Amino acid sequence: MKLVVLKFGGTSVANVPQIKKIALKIKQEISQGNKVIVVVSAMAGVTNNLVDLVKSTSDTPAFSEYDVVLSTGEQVTSALLTIALDNLNIKARSWLGWQVPIISDKSYGKAIIEEIKTNHILEFLKTNQVAVISGFQGISKENRITTLGRGGSDTSAVAIAAAFSAERCDIYTDVDGVYTTDPRIVKSAKKLDQITYEEMLELASQGAKVLQTRSVALAMKYNVKLRVLSSFEDLPGTYIIKEERKMEKSEISGIAHSLNEAKITLSGVPDEPGQAAEIFGALAKYSINVDMIVQSSSINHEATDITFTIPESDLMTAESTIKKIQKKIGFRKFITETNVVKISVIGNSMRTQSGVAKTMFETLANNQINIHVISTSEIKISVLISSDYYELAMRSLHSAFGLDV
Amino acid sequence: MKLVVLKFGGTSVANVPQIKKIALKIKQEISQGNKVIVVVSAMAGVTNNLVDLVKSTSDTPAFSEYDVVLSTGEQVTSALLTIALDNLNIKARSWLGWQVPIISDKSYGKAIIEEIKTNHILEFLKTNQVAVISGFQGISKENRITTLGRGGSDTSAVAIAAAFSAERCDIYTDVDGVYTTDPRIVKSAKKLDQITYEEMLELASQGAKVLQTRSVALAMKYNVKLRVLSSFEDLPGTYIIKEERKMEKSEISGIAHSLNEAKITLSGVPDEPGQAAEIFGALAKYSINVDMIVQSSSINHEATDITFTIPESDLMTAESTIKKIQKKIGFRKFITETNVVKISVIGNSMRTQSGVAKTMFETLANNQINIHVISTSEIKISVLISSDYYELAMRSLHSAFGLDV
Repeated sequence: MKLVVLKFGGTSVANVPQIKKIALKIKQEISQGNKVIVVVSAMAGVTNNLVDLVKSTSDTPAFSEYDVVLSTGEQVTSALLTIALDNLNIKARSWLGWQVPIISDKSYGKAIIEEIKTNHILEFLKTNQVAVISGFQGISKENRITTLGRGGSDTSAVAIAAAFSAERCDIYTDVDGVYTTDPRIVKSAKKLDQITYEEMLELASQGAKVLQTRSVALAMKYNVKLRVLSSFEDLPGTYIIKEERKMEKSEISGIAHSLNEAKITLSGVPDEPGQAAEIFGALAKYSINVDMIVQSSSINHEATDITFTIPESDLMTAESTIKKIQKKIGFRKFITETNVVKISVIGNSMRTQSGVAKTMFETLANNQINIHVISTSEIKISVLISSDYYELAMRSLHSAFGLDV
Repeated sequence: MKLVVLKFGGTSVANVPQIKKIALKIKQEISQGNKVIVVVSAMAGVTNNLVDLVKSTSDTPAFSEYDVVLSTGEQVTSALLTIALDNLNIKARSWLGWQVPIISDKSYGKAIIEEIKTNHILEFLKTNQVAVISGFQGISKENRITTLGRGGSDTSAVAIAAAFSAERCDIYTDVDGVYTTDPRIVKSAKKLDQITYEEMLELASQGAKVLQTRSVALAMKYNVKLRVLSSFEDLPGTYIIKEERKMEKSEISGIAHSLNEAKITLSGVPDEPGQAAEIFGALAKYSINVDMIVQSSSINHEATDITFTIPESDLMTAESTIKKIQKKIGFRKFITETNVVKISVIGNSMRTQSGVAKTMFETLANNQINIHVISTSEIKISVLISSDYYELAMRSLHSAFGLDV
């Protein structure tokens, strides 16, 4: 008998009628002869309300207590879904993180799963019942509730699928799969039947908000067969797997965009060793995630410009941090720009293909779109452009790489 | 160093500003050199919302899952109060029922506390921190969350005070103490400085909604010094203790009333052995709590009338239950009346006093108030009267027993 893990996110469990609907989906899965573990998020909006409640109590809450509050969201959903299953004569019970137990480290608010004990759930599954596990939560060795950080339920589901060697892990969400690009922007966007972990990882971190990056990385590590599909429609979704089995494929699989970027340029930085370390070390201290970094080559070995991007929300912190070390670094000007968007083309086959960069830059040039910054990895090329042109850039790139067909 | 248990109910923790206020009350207690354990309820309204959520999912939820949902209310409060204490530089941590642990039986939805393990909390208190325990919840030997039934947080607090041999258990609530009668009805009602467990027990079960009956019974059993006081005003409250230490006292300590009563009369019940057992056995099967019972003496040994009271909310169930056994019993008429109120006079000294009944009946007669049913216990006399006259009855009895002074 196969074991499958089904994960239902916030909008899939938005309210009681929706919870009753997914109970029917679970019934379908059981009727196919599968053993089922379900992982649930908090009902849509609940987590935000709980965060607000904590914030109105204190600006600096202890994260160990923050987790006690936040974990109640998933606790409620798992019990309500169990009750809904029971109504369909499907035997089930809720399992909280500490009951499984899902053991994590003690970095409250952003805990890392260390181990999932399988013995209780395995015993339980023998009784032909459905285990409905609260996602997002674990228990530390101090016997206290932890949470995995926002979006952590995807990670819970993948970790559980890995621990129980599940046949597959289905992530039910409000989209029906992974697309070549955002269908709201590019009408000709196509749903992908399958995609590799690496590609999905780039898509996820590049702004395709389908799956949490961390959960994809975990699935890749443990080779968990992932599927993203809709909780609202009865469609096959997109498989995220080790290798694409299609012989023929487009050299790139998708185009991602990320809106909330800010660009910082430090101009006239004295060209001396250790300057970059000084700057990015200071930003790291405030956990500011620096993404693209370019340094203009210094012609006269006197001064250079350093440009980098950070999340727009971190701009104020970054500005005050950098200005504190202005004297020490000795740069001339500090220039920021927030009217920018990062566009990435992603493709597993890019490694063996040349010409992707050429096609990308030519396409943008043909549309009179100026490129601010470029960065590349093995399977992606990203450019930072003015936000005025991002829809045009996405549409023309989607077409140029043959994804419209 | 003394250990005190402070319990804060729903309105005391109604919202975040209120939670911050009670953090100040706790600070006061600590500044007096006491070690403190706090027990909290869910924020006002939260439990009702959670019950509604469960009910909208199923009419017949498994109580084990119902408890998983309901316990989140107290879970949230205990963490928020801990955060508020931390803001005042008072070191604290939240303790959930399963973390203490508070071990209960497995009657989910209405569990009974079996044992409170004290070792973890005792270790913790040595670090001079405040333990903020979620009331109302426990853990069964099946390692699942249980709840103690509505109002169970009072019981949690008393049980914890008993387990830790606390100096006293303060129940903070929205009234400033126990009164000789309901001050909203009788203007001359007086706050009592102290009252015995037995008297409080009668007052609580007779409709003075200050403390849950079960918690008073538990306090009496373990001789826990209870105090009821206001979370909104800085007043001394009422002590509930073993013996009143006052030399002089009124022979009765209070007058209680209970509005939601229904009276049922079965007339023409054949006077044969086993009839009462048949009737009340049938009602017990549906957990209908029968209160006052009177049976008219049958003069000719042929037929008798049986009158009893039940909670008004159980009337429909009681009616259908009784009508099912009408043929078997063979009574003639089934008469119900809901326009009735039970008035009780309560006094510990009543045991050694005669004349209480006489004063009571005379007072009612002088006011032309007809008595439907009478029942008595060692420390109380209750009468059922028409609800039209209950305020008049309470006022005149309050005065007749010298409580106005």
